[in-house]
Amino acid sequence: MPATPFSSCSYLILQPRFNSYFNPLFRSFTYQLSTSLLSFNGIKFTAARIHSSLSPAAETESQSGGGGRSGALSPGPIVAGEVQRIDVNPPKGTRDFPPEEMRLRNWLFNNFKEVSRLYGFEEVDFPVLENEALFTRKAGEEIKDQLYCFEDRGNRRVALRPELTPSLARLVIQKGKSVPLPLKWFTVGQCWRYERMTRGRRREHYQWNMDIIGVPGVMAEAELISSIVSLFKRIGIKDSDVGFKVSSRKVLQEVLKCYSIPESLFGKVCVIIDKIEKIPVDEVKKELMAAGVSQEAVQELLQVLSVKSLTELEEKLGSSGEAIADLKQLFSLAEKFGYSEWIQFDASVVRGLAYYTGIVFEGFDREGKLRAICGGGRYDHLFSTFGADDIPACGFGFGDAVVVEIPLSSLLFEQLLREKGLLPDLSLQMDYIVCALDEDLQGSAAMVAHVLRKKGQSVDLVLESKPLKWVFKRAARNNAQRLVLVGSSEWQRGVVGVKILATGEQYEVKLDELI
Amino acid sequence: MPATPFSSCSYLILQPRFNSYFNPLFRSFTYQLSTSLLSFNGIKFTAARIHSSLSPAAETESQSGGGGRSGALSPGPIVAGEVQRIDVNPPKGTRDFPPEEMRLRNWLFNNFKEVSRLYGFEEVDFPVLENEALFTRKAGEEIKDQLYCFEDRGNRRVALRPELTPSLARLVIQKGKSVPLPLKWFTVGQCWRYERMTRGRRREHYQWNMDIIGVPGVMAEAELISSIVSLFKRIGIKDSDVGFKVSSRKVLQEVLKCYSIPESLFGKVCVIIDKIEKIPVDEVKKELMAAGVSQEAVQELLQVLSVKSLTELEEKLGSSGEAIADLKQLFSLAEKFGYSEWIQFDASVVRGLAYYTGIVFEGFDREGKLRAICGGGRYDHLFSTFGADDIPACGFGFGDAVVVEIPLSSLLFEQLLREKGLLPDLSLQMDYIVCALDEDLQGSAAMVAHVLRKKGQSVDLVLESKPLKWVFKRAARNNAQRLVLVGSSEWQRGVVGVKILATGEQYEVKLDELI
Repeated sequence: MPATPFSSCSYLILQPRFNSYFNPLFRSFTYQLSTSLLSFNGIKFTAARIHSSLSPAAETESQSGGGGRSGALSPGPIVAGEVQRIDVNPPKGTRDFPPEEMRLRNWLFNNFKEVSRLYGFEEVDFPVLENEALFTRKAGEEIKDQLYCFEDRGNRRVALRPELTPSLARLVIQKGKSVPLPLKWFTVGQCWRYERMTRGRRREHYQWNMDIIGVPGVMAEAELISSIVSLFKRIGIKDSDVGFKVSSRKVLQEVLKCYSIPESLFGKVCVIIDKIEKIPVDEVKKELMAAGVSQEAVQELLQVLSVKSLTELEEKLGSSGEAIADLKQLFSLAEKFGYSEWIQFDASVVRGLAYYTGIVFEGFDREGKLRAICGGGRYDHLFSTFGADDIPACGFGFGDAVVVEIPLSSLLFEQLLREKGLLPDLSLQMDYIVCALDEDLQGSAAMVAHVLRKKGQSVDLVLESKPLKWVFKRAARNNAQRLVLVGSSEWQRGVVGVKILATGEQYEVKLDELI
Repeated sequence: MPATPFSSCSYLILQPRFNSYFNPLFRSFTYQLSTSLLSFNGIKFTAARIHSSLSPAAETESQSGGGGRSGALSPGPIVAGEVQRIDVNPPKGTRDFPPEEMRLRNWLFNNFKEVSRLYGFEEVDFPVLENEALFTRKAGEEIKDQLYCFEDRGNRRVALRPELTPSLARLVIQKGKSVPLPLKWFTVGQCWRYERMTRGRRREHYQWNMDIIGVPGVMAEAELISSIVSLFKRIGIKDSDVGFKVSSRKVLQEVLKCYSIPESLFGKVCVIIDKIEKIPVDEVKKELMAAGVSQEAVQELLQVLSVKSLTELEEKLGSSGEAIADLKQLFSLAEKFGYSEWIQFDASVVRGLAYYTGIVFEGFDREGKLRAICGGGRYDHLFSTFGADDIPACGFGFGDAVVVEIPLSSLLFEQLLREKGLLPDLSLQMDYIVCALDEDLQGSAAMVAHVLRKKGQSVDLVLESKPLKWVFKRAARNNAQRLVLVGSSEWQRGVVGVKILATGEQYEVKLDELI
């Protein structure tokens, strides 16, 4: 096909009848165009297709859609006896991330990563498929029952990781003396759990973890909570929206000690107590007694759990224990860190993972609509359960499959953000859309795109011969800032036509002067 | 413990004997310090520990390491009868990403993402666990034999995705008319394959995919190759290092048509032919004949595969076919896109996936040390194999488990980058390290960190009481730019001491004037 002269068959007159094809947003946009685009270089243009498509297939495809749906996919009917249509949904409990969801995920993850960077944490990751043994603690945790585990072709027991902390501990043990403590590590990673899908939970989700390995003092927990507060503030969530309930497992430990309950039972007892809001209290009592806790001790444990102030706790436990000292220090540090109004003492917070040993905390929404948004604590004895020397450590999971308390908390979190109207504008943005006015000029359009991309501009290069109406519609959908049209006569003169789409301003520019 | 006056017990004199603890890099750094730090505020300081640690545990831990290894982890001996030490290695064929590896991964992925953005592609993702049916094509592909598949607890057949394209096609079909074509989508995602680990291959790896859905013409393939060339150029790889071999499956299709071999056999035949460099030619011949290809056709196919120029191919096939037309157009566009010197015609390139239908290409290193670096092509009939209407489509995988040709190609790619000396400096960088000179001032140090972080500075807050020697060592390890020391007398005056670590310059600054 010969090159179409720029002056005879170039830009589109947006006639009123075309507007009916556009959605409201685009309509106002095209309205602006229709008044400003009628002449370009002082020449009137026709609304006809500029030229025929590259191939018969393209022809059919772009014809099929008409004005509004040009080129869109039309899944065919399933004919009996032909290939059976696959299940187009992702497996139960998992999800796809189409572009708009992916932008949201990237926005959230980038906030996780930026906060981690500000706090001087280094990013790490581990395989999502781990040896099952890493997760099969014997404390009756819900997380173990929900393990997504398999036997691989080599007859090895493997599992999709339900949480990140055991992998982190494994890597720390492996690194041994080569890494100087303290380590400050963070991960944003996928986790799985296999559970009944009755409660709208997901089986696959993402978690932001921050861990401090090698610091025994409460400064570490204070720093972790500070980082979560920073995340909340960054994305516009206030202390009137969410808060942290804080306690220490040492509270329970001190009670258990009074009743001479062996320390080996501690993790198991905590896991049972954590169920208190999910199953009837009598069930919890029964389980505790079955685990070897006396009735008297059970009563005392349950009483302590209802304490809501440090003063009251001090009355109960005395002022000499570590539980009180740690908690007092944490609340004192919270003042210095500037997040006192975000945290409150609540002895009922125990968390569902067996390995916590000291301070435990969880983020909650003050309206009480959601379950825990995040949670964490100190786990000073996890390393010895893996056969290594213990190292003081603490961390949190934001996404909270750490304690398998809530569904996809990033999803819940999105929900919170949506409710609070805090989600930013995450629409697709494009610097340029570049289009040849003639099939023979597609290579030239590619050259233009190449020049712009080298200068860091994002370019949606139109890869087919399409009517200008189509090009404007795509430009609007992609929020392109500028349109470059490569026409024959201009190209011969070494220039291209540029249009600033928001204002309608248009000008010619030499190829090497494009920015 | 009372606040230690700033003037009596603050900064460290780096005495020569300490230097023996430092690595060479740090030695030169501390040398600089030793000449510039001897006096700060005109006061001489002692090298002693500033104050005792926060707790007995911290004391023990920081004492154990001495000067050079203070605070590092020491995995304990495994005592028989105690807890068995877990396997500290990730499962066979998978890997951890400790900080230094993670920085490398982020650097590479960020380059993938930036190139994709420049080309106007939108990011998407899919579950890593998919229904097995999505991948079980019946064309004898290696990828099917290496499927990491399981039965889940609900007796569903699931698989860890071996490639990304089928999930992408599934999502496109699911979205149906709601997405306007063409789609330009990219993914950077994890893929798995289960294979014998004899060749040092990995079972888990990452892949960068770019796909264009809805463009029938060769402009799409030209754009895809252009984006990979851009990636190479960005990271300093030249056309003297790598190139692309390009062919079209239509070449084979035209030969098969001559011998009246049914189109339904096409994918299978291509998969067999692709094995030609892996198994003896006689085996390939046998397999082809077993699949129903006549001996004559087999001879002709093998002859065509040896063709290395378009002219020769045109002599063989005639000039009227689509294969020649497509390839000519691609080479013509490559000139316009500016990457002619990167590509060459090579009929032996077939690729190992059944679904390719047109142009196929693969990236190779010119020294011939590595297997394909990336590969892709047109797959116009994939959608109908899923029971939907076909849509013209093409894409590539960089990481190349797409055709299960090479191991972790990002690893191979790293290898290439290392060999070429192209890896950038990816060491950890930190804006500040902040340290209290007294345990009572830790909250104040937290306030300082808070102020700096609000201003976007990354801060490694020292969470324990540590000797200054330790602090300087950590600062050097983390490439911290500035050290802030929070001392009692300064704090009372509302200032903190700041030291620019590269120059030794030091000054006092008010808290609200920190930047």
